[in-house]
Amino acid sequence: MSIETAPDMPPAHPFDDDKLREECGIFGCVGVVDAANFIALGLHALQHRGQEAGGIVTHDTETGFNQARRMGLVRDNFTSQKVMETLPGAIGIGHVRYSTAGSKGQTAIRDVQPFFGEFSMGGAAIAHNGNITNAVQLRRELIERGSIFQSSSDSECIIHLMARSMGRTIPDRMEEALRKVEGAFSIVAMTRSKLIGCRDPLGVRPLVLGKVGDGFVLASETCALDIIGAELVREIEPGEMVVISADKGVQSHFPFRPQKPRFCVFEHVYFSRPDSILGGRSVYETREAIGRELAKEAPVDADLVCPVPDSGTPAAIGFSLESGIPYAMGIIRNQYMGRTFIEPTESIRNMGVRLKLNVNRALIKGKRVILVDDSVVRGTTSIKIREMILDAGAKEVHFRIASPPTAWPCFYGVDTPNREKLLAANMSEDEMCAHLGVDSLRFISLDGLYRAVGESGGRNKAQPQYCDACFSGEYPVEPADMIDAGFQMKTAAE
Amino acid sequence: MSIETAPDMPPAHPFDDDKLREECGIFGCVGVVDAANFIALGLHALQHRGQEAGGIVTHDTETGFNQARRMGLVRDNFTSQKVMETLPGAIGIGHVRYSTAGSKGQTAIRDVQPFFGEFSMGGAAIAHNGNITNAVQLRRELIERGSIFQSSSDSECIIHLMARSMGRTIPDRMEEALRKVEGAFSIVAMTRSKLIGCRDPLGVRPLVLGKVGDGFVLASETCALDIIGAELVREIEPGEMVVISADKGVQSHFPFRPQKPRFCVFEHVYFSRPDSILGGRSVYETREAIGRELAKEAPVDADLVCPVPDSGTPAAIGFSLESGIPYAMGIIRNQYMGRTFIEPTESIRNMGVRLKLNVNRALIKGKRVILVDDSVVRGTTSIKIREMILDAGAKEVHFRIASPPTAWPCFYGVDTPNREKLLAANMSEDEMCAHLGVDSLRFISLDGLYRAVGESGGRNKAQPQYCDACFSGEYPVEPADMIDAGFQMKTAAE
Amino acid sequence: MSIETAPDMPPAHPFDDDKLREECGIFGCVGVVDAANFIALGLHALQHRGQEAGGIVTHDTETGFNQARRMGLVRDNFTSQKVMETLPGAIGIGHVRYSTAGSKGQTAIRDVQPFFGEFSMGGAAIAHNGNITNAVQLRRELIERGSIFQSSSDSECIIHLMARSMGRTIPDRMEEALRKVEGAFSIVAMTRSKLIGCRDPLGVRPLVLGKVGDGFVLASETCALDIIGAELVREIEPGEMVVISADKGVQSHFPFRPQKPRFCVFEHVYFSRPDSILGGRSVYETREAIGRELAKEAPVDADLVCPVPDSGTPAAIGFSLESGIPYAMGIIRNQYMGRTFIEPTESIRNMGVRLKLNVNRALIKGKRVILVDDSVVRGTTSIKIREMILDAGAKEVHFRIASPPTAWPCFYGVDTPNREKLLAANMSEDEMCAHLGVDSLRFISLDGLYRAVGESGGRNKAQPQYCDACFSGEYPVEPADMIDAGFQMKTAAE
Amino acid sequence: MSIETAPDMPPAHPFDDDKLREECGIFGCVGVVDAANFIALGLHALQHRGQEAGGIVTHDTETGFNQARRMGLVRDNFTSQKVMETLPGAIGIGHVRYSTAGSKGQTAIRDVQPFFGEFSMGGAAIAHNGNITNAVQLRRELIERGSIFQSSSDSECIIHLMARSMGRTIPDRMEEALRKVEGAFSIVAMTRSKLIGCRDPLGVRPLVLGKVGDGFVLASETCALDIIGAELVREIEPGEMVVISADKGVQSHFPFRPQKPRFCVFEHVYFSRPDSILGGRSVYETREAIGRELAKEAPVDADLVCPVPDSGTPAAIGFSLESGIPYAMGIIRNQYMGRTFIEPTESIRNMGVRLKLNVNRALIKGKRVILVDDSVVRGTTSIKIREMILDAGAKEVHFRIASPPTAWPCFYGVDTPNREKLLAANMSEDEMCAHLGVDSLRFISLDGLYRAVGESGGRNKAQPQYCDACFSGEYPVEPADMIDAGFQMKTAAE
Repeated sequence: MSIETAPDMPPAHPFDDDKLREECGIFGCVGVVDAANFIALGLHALQHRGQEAGGIVTHDTETGFNQARRMGLVRDNFTSQKVMETLPGAIGIGHVRYSTAGSKGQTAIRDVQPFFGEFSMGGAAIAHNGNITNAVQLRRELIERGSIFQSSSDSECIIHLMARSMGRTIPDRMEEALRKVEGAFSIVAMTRSKLIGCRDPLGVRPLVLGKVGDGFVLASETCALDIIGAELVREIEPGEMVVISADKGVQSHFPFRPQKPRFCVFEHVYFSRPDSILGGRSVYETREAIGRELAKEAPVDADLVCPVPDSGTPAAIGFSLESGIPYAMGIIRNQYMGRTFIEPTESIRNMGVRLKLNVNRALIKGKRVILVDDSVVRGTTSIKIREMILDAGAKEVHFRIASPPTAWPCFYGVDTPNREKLLAANMSEDEMCAHLGVDSLRFISLDGLYRAVGESGGRNKAQPQYCDACFSGEYPVEPADMIDAGFQMKTAAE
Repeated sequence: MSIETAPDMPPAHPFDDDKLREECGIFGCVGVVDAANFIALGLHALQHRGQEAGGIVTHDTETGFNQARRMGLVRDNFTSQKVMETLPGAIGIGHVRYSTAGSKGQTAIRDVQPFFGEFSMGGAAIAHNGNITNAVQLRRELIERGSIFQSSSDSECIIHLMARSMGRTIPDRMEEALRKVEGAFSIVAMTRSKLIGCRDPLGVRPLVLGKVGDGFVLASETCALDIIGAELVREIEPGEMVVISADKGVQSHFPFRPQKPRFCVFEHVYFSRPDSILGGRSVYETREAIGRELAKEAPVDADLVCPVPDSGTPAAIGFSLESGIPYAMGIIRNQYMGRTFIEPTESIRNMGVRLKLNVNRALIKGKRVILVDDSVVRGTTSIKIREMILDAGAKEVHFRIASPPTAWPCFYGVDTPNREKLLAANMSEDEMCAHLGVDSLRFISLDGLYRAVGESGGRNKAQPQYCDACFSGEYPVEPADMIDAGFQMKTAAE
Repeated sequence: MSIETAPDMPPAHPFDDDKLREECGIFGCVGVVDAANFIALGLHALQHRGQEAGGIVTHDTETGFNQARRMGLVRDNFTSQKVMETLPGAIGIGHVRYSTAGSKGQTAIRDVQPFFGEFSMGGAAIAHNGNITNAVQLRRELIERGSIFQSSSDSECIIHLMARSMGRTIPDRMEEALRKVEGAFSIVAMTRSKLIGCRDPLGVRPLVLGKVGDGFVLASETCALDIIGAELVREIEPGEMVVISADKGVQSHFPFRPQKPRFCVFEHVYFSRPDSILGGRSVYETREAIGRELAKEAPVDADLVCPVPDSGTPAAIGFSLESGIPYAMGIIRNQYMGRTFIEPTESIRNMGVRLKLNVNRALIKGKRVILVDDSVVRGTTSIKIREMILDAGAKEVHFRIASPPTAWPCFYGVDTPNREKLLAANMSEDEMCAHLGVDSLRFISLDGLYRAVGESGGRNKAQPQYCDACFSGEYPVEPADMIDAGFQMKTAAE
Repeated sequence: MSIETAPDMPPAHPFDDDKLREECGIFGCVGVVDAANFIALGLHALQHRGQEAGGIVTHDTETGFNQARRMGLVRDNFTSQKVMETLPGAIGIGHVRYSTAGSKGQTAIRDVQPFFGEFSMGGAAIAHNGNITNAVQLRRELIERGSIFQSSSDSECIIHLMARSMGRTIPDRMEEALRKVEGAFSIVAMTRSKLIGCRDPLGVRPLVLGKVGDGFVLASETCALDIIGAELVREIEPGEMVVISADKGVQSHFPFRPQKPRFCVFEHVYFSRPDSILGGRSVYETREAIGRELAKEAPVDADLVCPVPDSGTPAAIGFSLESGIPYAMGIIRNQYMGRTFIEPTESIRNMGVRLKLNVNRALIKGKRVILVDDSVVRGTTSIKIREMILDAGAKEVHFRIASPPTAWPCFYGVDTPNREKLLAANMSEDEMCAHLGVDSLRFISLDGLYRAVGESGGRNKAQPQYCDACFSGEYPVEPADMIDAGFQMKTAAE
């Protein structure tokens, strides 16, 4: 069912569509004054995880559950007194999101989380980051049994499973519902008085617990704790469900069969903000370490190391520090990116990238330049950047990529192009180098990446320490719906 | 759950809140080119039945079901090429609405009909005009059995009952669902290829069938057929359910136990447009006949007969024709009413009504004036109008009201104040006359009203021909939810 | 210079473009609390004189001059606390306007009055209703001498003439400026402390003086006094300039050579609101009298007298009262007119008029109907109405028009089509009757019209008592700019 | 006169108000297809020079002069097909702006440039960057002689001077007008066919000439040439006026008495984009050189060199390269800054800066940190940043500032706080260090800055090579209007 969208589309992603994109950020808090203000700030800090839409639900004894869901950025929707006054209460959850790949870049307002359901023992709201890999099957069964779906969101499956549960309390019902669900997900949920958080058994997606005053906070990343002055308590464990109330504090449950964790390694490479802390490690320092590894694995004689702004910056600094080649900002990013401009006639090529980036011509001219980028997905941006650098008179261009070749789609809550569009699924490193037209191209190795994230022995092939399916094709959770839809898993031969 | 509303509230009702208000208008068509255009036009013609919000659902084989729901007037939402292009298809239904009394004048966008549900055999959308009197009970049972409600609308009950039905087809499921439902309602619904219409067993709310080219139309009133050039075929019968497709035409079902019809008599008095035809009678002529009856029942010597614009106009003309007293526009209505103005300091009293109405001072001065109005609900407007007329120098003011005293609330889809706010529930005619401060006040008798609508013998007390609960307190369908909530039915003594 | 317009065009005129349209309404007040509130209310009451845009200027000793000018209706722009707070002060003026014919229906925001100018002795704002017939010549001279125009409005000419005046005070400068100006205009203007009003020497356009509390009001029509509870003091005299201050009251000046007045007779027929008082006469009663004259001049045997809503209503009532033929609402107007709908395929003809008007079919069928309209301009609407009435089964249709044939354009502030588009400029009454396809067509005679406005002897041909140029082609002020642009005045032969 | 502003205020400046702010960017082109598209792109590249509003004027033989002026960012206003279609033509100019200090951060739409004037020989539009220091005097004289001003902008003075000039052509009139004007300004202007550019005699503000295809471009900075693929031809000379047409190319005039140039040195430090080229020097490399000078002048033993993002980045890189201390991103900037959030209760301090910046805690903890910033104006941001760094556990904090102490306001088109608010106007370097609470604070010396911009001998005290009034208090053009208003120039003693 095609559904109307907001009249004004949110501003485009600052990078073009040649990146993998995290699809969601989640936040919740309990035991604070005016929870909605904290949630708005937390979602603002998580905006890089989803820019298309956002939603907040709070509960107040006088008004009951309150909700606002809007297309667009947090700063544009959740800063006015008028809106915030409609969201009273000391408990609440919030969500920012991208559209899923299937919906062609258009989020319907009814798909914006959190979702709310009324049960006989009271209401509950839920929001998640990630993907339920058997959602299509679950939805089909629920419809056959008489459930009416109002959205295309996976979260709604959980609400319907809870509605049909025999559990006496909402946390009981959520436990029962989650046991029917497969996939990679972090969840924040709430009842009138309880904040609930949960990570899937493998802990693929992040979720941290913080403390602010007498209240508690759940958030996708630690940068959302910093913005409200909360202290990091710990990460929610893989497979853990916490039930938090202002009076009883944090209670821990483990509804799933225990498994060895497989945290998403790409959170270190690109998704998370550099000022967040993941698994006890500074994301910035991990990325700097990736740059150092890359300088060791793939050295090259050159005059300058330049980042592709802004995500390549820490790795470029690391590469410079390791190699001794001076670091410089050869490419400048325009601070005021936004909607699509009308492209003038043929006299201008590559308008898209020019609107965002400009080469520092005087600096680049006649130089041998190492460009450090975080990833190569479809390669379209890389080609445009190479052209800009050469147009500006660079003598040589060497690409160094802070992640291994992205050869497989992610089915765990990340927006990836179809496999045929992934450059690394179709070409060898040498073919890619020729295709991009650069003097050299090198990706960090999987082992190098594992070393940079602290696994000094590299990747454990028998039992990898992280989910690296996008690089390795080894999916820790079977993507059941996608296989139904025809996706070919990696064969033994590959 | 309090839910966000559209940023810009729709313009206020042209009259103030001292009127009963029909809560909905419905429209559907099948077998036409670009159904959405016809629906928009039909809803525009039915705008007097609901000005707060409107919605359209269509179906097209390529895009599936399409939907747009908006706060505000049809002309402001469903006229742009951009919106209408999102609603392709040869079949569709639409709805305009007021808020229900309970929601304090604010319709949440999620309460805007039509509602849509996906069943295992395909999708269906539904919209209704009226009220399900056991909706609260049904909703409680459905929630206990695991249904998740997304709105506070009665229509959603029907969708959930259909979802839990064992019927093989959507019309079968709707029949089954409707048999569980009590109340007064007219319904339009649709599947991918079938347009469905239904009236409750008493036929309280109106619904007509029209034909345009090879297509069929359902609408609350005939004025919505006129605007698209459709011909009136007939009214849907009380208790009838029609299933209409482009190829097989109209099939008639009667799912309910037959009962004697009780059409809403107030549709004749006020709700319907004067250019509509109800039960084979011109609404305009009925109202003129009411004026004639009133002149016979309650004559008075005076210089001018003036309507309270605009709804009192036909009865005033009838009164003038019967009495021979000249008809004149003593009160002029401002064409550009709208949002609330900021009232200046005390120097101005009664700003509200001055914004909408102005007395024709030169005409009124020194005259004995008969004012004909359609009804008196709370009496607040009547007092302001009397003041304006006397300020302008009228010698005498006589009110003649084209309906009997409104002493009871309506529970069948009409927005009525609580009983304690209804002037006629608390005062005799003489007391009301004194309260309003006019020289005389007379309401048409119930029998007079019945004669004007064509019942030459007046009201059949044993078995009234119409629903006149708002005048008589005799409710043809027990308002179960309201009784649960504490409403006191009329006692034998009253 | 083409200039941007407001993103959302104001709603279309309720009637289509087959009417003459007054181009402006003006209002001013001094010595009141929060002048802007009174101005907003006054402009709302004058909205029928101009719906495209409105502006308000006030002055407060603390903030100086304050201004807000907006596209659209008063109720949509000047009712929010946020806007009204920016307009403090006890003195101010306001304006509503249509676009002039030349600008193709699009008013640029910079053309919205009032206009403001800063002189060495302080600022002044001005707004006018009417037309300066030598504005093009004046503008050319001013530009040659170094004035920079910011708009295409005539008001700006007056500001520039004032800027170049040697007068010591602003009223002195305005007097000097007005003596250079030709045309038909009413003006409201203001300094920091003085409200100024002026009518052209012939008094073609209206302007009245009112009193509210200790303050004074100027307005185009008395209905704008009523809405704020002000009392009518008197009309400003033709050629009079009043300078009003809170402390000194009203001072009267007569800057022009005295002339015999020629008030616009069409204000009585159509422009003014029926509840206004013009020249001591109720507009409603004048229109009723026109209907009576018409019944005497052009009687016809018929079953019903119906107005073309809404402007034909008083004349239709008069026709009915004089002829004894029953008055009825054969055509019903939709209260919710607005923007253009997308017209469905050929199955629907004449959508435009159907959106606004619907025939009361049951009433009209088989009847001989007299339709009373205020005027026939291009005749396009008349043809559509005749079609609707015949489609509904009327046996005969007789048009009676409450004004003489409109054969000449107005150059005094009224939007008229080019002469070749005026039906009466190209056809005799019989030819028009055949063209419109009605059983009979009669216009009131010029003498009949004069009788109805109180000139019992009819029109004084040697020295007409009114401006009736649109009927007679006799222009009391030479339209200098239009003659320069090629307009052919009436020849002796015509 | 207070005038309405756009309903939605543009997003706040990404930094808070503790920076000097360039007030304008200008752009023009001739001889290109669809000039407006190039202008929109050019203004987008110049958006850092003014974010409150923007305007474009073009000329096309068919439509004449076309104009659009809007509050807000270029990307939000000048990217829609609908707006751009209203701006046809092969010639045009554009402007982005901040508000001036006096107007309290609110730009009225009527103050948005370019300004347009109609002269007897045709129209002209003009936009400028900078300040006319005798504008108040000129305006007073012009008003006394009968000019009507519509804005508070200096540009309008020039238009009025041109209107009163006797010159035969528009360029002649502009030359005559400019000779009456004092100050620091760069101008772009246009007639129907000619693009005009001009710099004041000292060349304080920048203006460059570019070539794209057969067309010519004028822009404030070279980054605006890059975005449309234009080549840099040369800078416009101080005191030069160029008149450019598609057919005759560039003609050069020198209307002013020659003077020694005094280009604004702060353009190198902060205003210009790092990818622009000023006076043949890369701005990025100049800033890196400032960092190197600073490392030589004010070395300090530390663990990390961190920039205050983003403007301190190049100088921090230079400091790191010179000192050998590792460069690191200790402070991370949120990409999604925007409107003001509602600040939660006291539990959060310094919300403002937290919304924009977050400290990389894991990196900073226990470290001795050098923070490199571009300037210290009021010092408020510096204090907040110091607090954040210390809260994150830094052992020492050393500030190094890439400009000398800002002790004097700029009167040449830069928004500076009043002198009493400038920290360096009231404290010595040591006092500032104590006030900011850091372990050390050092500014680059004026001589060091001059060396970094290429003056190997440092500043020529007798005849400084740049305008450095904000540091030295030596104003190359007397700020006449400001002296009239009471500003105290530097005394011999200071």
